[in-house]
Amino acid sequence: MLIVQKFGGSSVANAHRIKEVAGRVWRTRQRNNEVVVVVSAMGDTTDELINLAHQVSPDPSPREMDQLLATGEQVSCALLTMALHETGAPAISLTGPQAGITTDGVYGKAAITGVAVARLRAELAAGKIVVVAGFQGAGPDGDITTLGRGGSDTTAVALAAALKADLCEIYTDVDGVFTADPRVVPEASKLPVISHDEMLELASLGAVVLHPRAVELAKFYGVPLVVRSSLNDNPGTVVKEDDGMERTHMVSGVAHDLNVAKIGLFDVLDQPGIAHRLFAALAAEKINVDMIIQGATRNGRNDIAFTVSRSDLKKALAVVERVQEAVGAKGYTYDDQVAKVSIVGAGMITRPGVAAAMFEALSAEGINIEMISTSEIKISCVIKESEALRAVRALHAKFGLDSIGER
Amino acid sequence: MLIVQKFGGSSVANAHRIKEVAGRVWRTRQRNNEVVVVVSAMGDTTDELINLAHQVSPDPSPREMDQLLATGEQVSCALLTMALHETGAPAISLTGPQAGITTDGVYGKAAITGVAVARLRAELAAGKIVVVAGFQGAGPDGDITTLGRGGSDTTAVALAAALKADLCEIYTDVDGVFTADPRVVPEASKLPVISHDEMLELASLGAVVLHPRAVELAKFYGVPLVVRSSLNDNPGTVVKEDDGMERTHMVSGVAHDLNVAKIGLFDVLDQPGIAHRLFAALAAEKINVDMIIQGATRNGRNDIAFTVSRSDLKKALAVVERVQEAVGAKGYTYDDQVAKVSIVGAGMITRPGVAAAMFEALSAEGINIEMISTSEIKISCVIKESEALRAVRALHAKFGLDSIGER
Repeated sequence: MLIVQKFGGSSVANAHRIKEVAGRVWRTRQRNNEVVVVVSAMGDTTDELINLAHQVSPDPSPREMDQLLATGEQVSCALLTMALHETGAPAISLTGPQAGITTDGVYGKAAITGVAVARLRAELAAGKIVVVAGFQGAGPDGDITTLGRGGSDTTAVALAAALKADLCEIYTDVDGVFTADPRVVPEASKLPVISHDEMLELASLGAVVLHPRAVELAKFYGVPLVVRSSLNDNPGTVVKEDDGMERTHMVSGVAHDLNVAKIGLFDVLDQPGIAHRLFAALAAEKINVDMIIQGATRNGRNDIAFTVSRSDLKKALAVVERVQEAVGAKGYTYDDQVAKVSIVGAGMITRPGVAAAMFEALSAEGINIEMISTSEIKISCVIKESEALRAVRALHAKFGLDSIGER
Repeated sequence: MLIVQKFGGSSVANAHRIKEVAGRVWRTRQRNNEVVVVVSAMGDTTDELINLAHQVSPDPSPREMDQLLATGEQVSCALLTMALHETGAPAISLTGPQAGITTDGVYGKAAITGVAVARLRAELAAGKIVVVAGFQGAGPDGDITTLGRGGSDTTAVALAAALKADLCEIYTDVDGVFTADPRVVPEASKLPVISHDEMLELASLGAVVLHPRAVELAKFYGVPLVVRSSLNDNPGTVVKEDDGMERTHMVSGVAHDLNVAKIGLFDVLDQPGIAHRLFAALAAEKINVDMIIQGATRNGRNDIAFTVSRSDLKKALAVVERVQEAVGAKGYTYDDQVAKVSIVGAGMITRPGVAAAMFEALSAEGINIEMISTSEIKISCVIKESEALRAVRALHAKFGLDSIGER
């Protein structure tokens, strides 16, 4: 088999962990597999480099930030390769550009445009384990560009797709994808399998074990993906295309996000272009808007509510203050003591009554729902932050998750 | 003018120093100069990376060491570029490979084979200050290779030569080249001018302000070189071809080296190949031998003495122990309490009696000479370490250096 293994920053945080990873990689290689390894920067390296940059400049140029940050992965891929040599394994490190990864050249958030696999193939053919620096590639002019945070997952899936790998293993510090956060719900269990779409929803809900870009890429190219722990040999969670078969549960997991703030505008004009004006102004400030709710129209006027992450609240309120007159709002309100709880499951597409069951469970706990948003495989509710963890436990029990999966 | 400026690790040791360097570079640019900057890694970065590597592997592969170490200069060139942007200066950072620097591909101690200046010229033509990562270049297969310690000086001179720069300024934390170590000889003064050959001798004597490879390269290509301080605006020392004119002093400086150990072999066979056998064995262990003295032959036998750095003494003694029988030695001795004092000056080629004056000065101080070695522009004596500093002061006075140069 040809296997791509990706190890995150905590898995290579120090020399000891790097040696452990080397042992695991070498064992994989010794089972007659070809192995390509993708590594993130060690531990807090990226944050330390960002901090260093900000000591020099409050707003560093994206090109120079990429030149700076790309060193983090270069360090860890060189060190892991040395550790592999130490175990007796033949290995070579390649930076993203050396590995043939090309991007669209957008500094700080480049998209991978291709992988020229000749060098990778040659090193594999020479019997080598190839250790690739994640998170980076060469722009059209040969400059170093980074893929943005979480980009190492994307590197791994892109390499797996380009090499037509048999398996892409994403190693992290948890055992896989859980039915809920085990710190909140002791009964939470690991899911043996999850669909790409469910994984995407969970990732966007803050239960991030895998970057959504990587999941989308894996889905598009049909890359077989496993999320598993670098701390043990447990089998992890397989992320694969939902085949609709053997679906025993409507809901696969319950997610929560405490980093939520809500803003509401009253009596906005019900005219074309109004919503665009508001959300374009927010986008111009690079504020990521999550849920958007627009209520029923009364007297040619609407209420619009939306959520943002709490760190963006101040910036978002400044935008609202500026545009409220232009959108004809009579006022606005905000609340940073809210949370979002969500149920996710490919099974709910075909099962009516899932939303009703969710609302019933929250109601039975006396929890008030402030906003609701639904997709085909997800229902999210904004509630008071103080009630969030109780809500998660109630929903986990309601949908029969206390008793499934592996422990 | 087109000026290449090189800043060493201590000049870019932290954000504050980096900003100071940016100010200096920008002022140079504003005086209507084109500027290319070469930087070393910040402060102790290279040592920290080496330490990290040794935590993973006692003997890391040279290729992976280069992949690792090259990040140090990449970090500092990105940070200096950000600091330049902050001052309002147009600037761009380039790694060694991006700057078109190619090498012979020997990991860890690559030699520069060429500089493809197209990118450098284009960025300069666009009005940019170009900040190049020192110490590195691309090998024949595109892999990153480092030039070895002190390689950033070589990078600067190579770029100056390739761009036909009007001036190459090497910034360091001293004011220039002195007639002796000012910590030992308070009367020591800065030399306004020194010849390439004198600089080479001083560099090899441990009074290193400029890497000897860089001096040789500058000499070969006729690159105008200045060594000056990054802490003030003093003019520094100009390193240039000796033109034999206006030479007022036989001796330009007195150097000393306390990191010396001496080994002597008694009664070695006086046959062809004997010296080769000994010194080849030492070279095979990568022991750098400095002075070598072979005395007059008596009865078909010789005494051979040589010096090594103290850190190599133990390894060197093991080699001697192993080969002494093969070279027919009757025994050996060693001393690690010795030092080397040297006088250097292009003027001594044409002036007889310089050696005699040196020996007279040492004799007047009651200092015994244990070994003597001479070149066209240098005379070195090995003496007791405890007498070294007294010897330096006596020689500095003897050759009239207490009263020349700038203070």
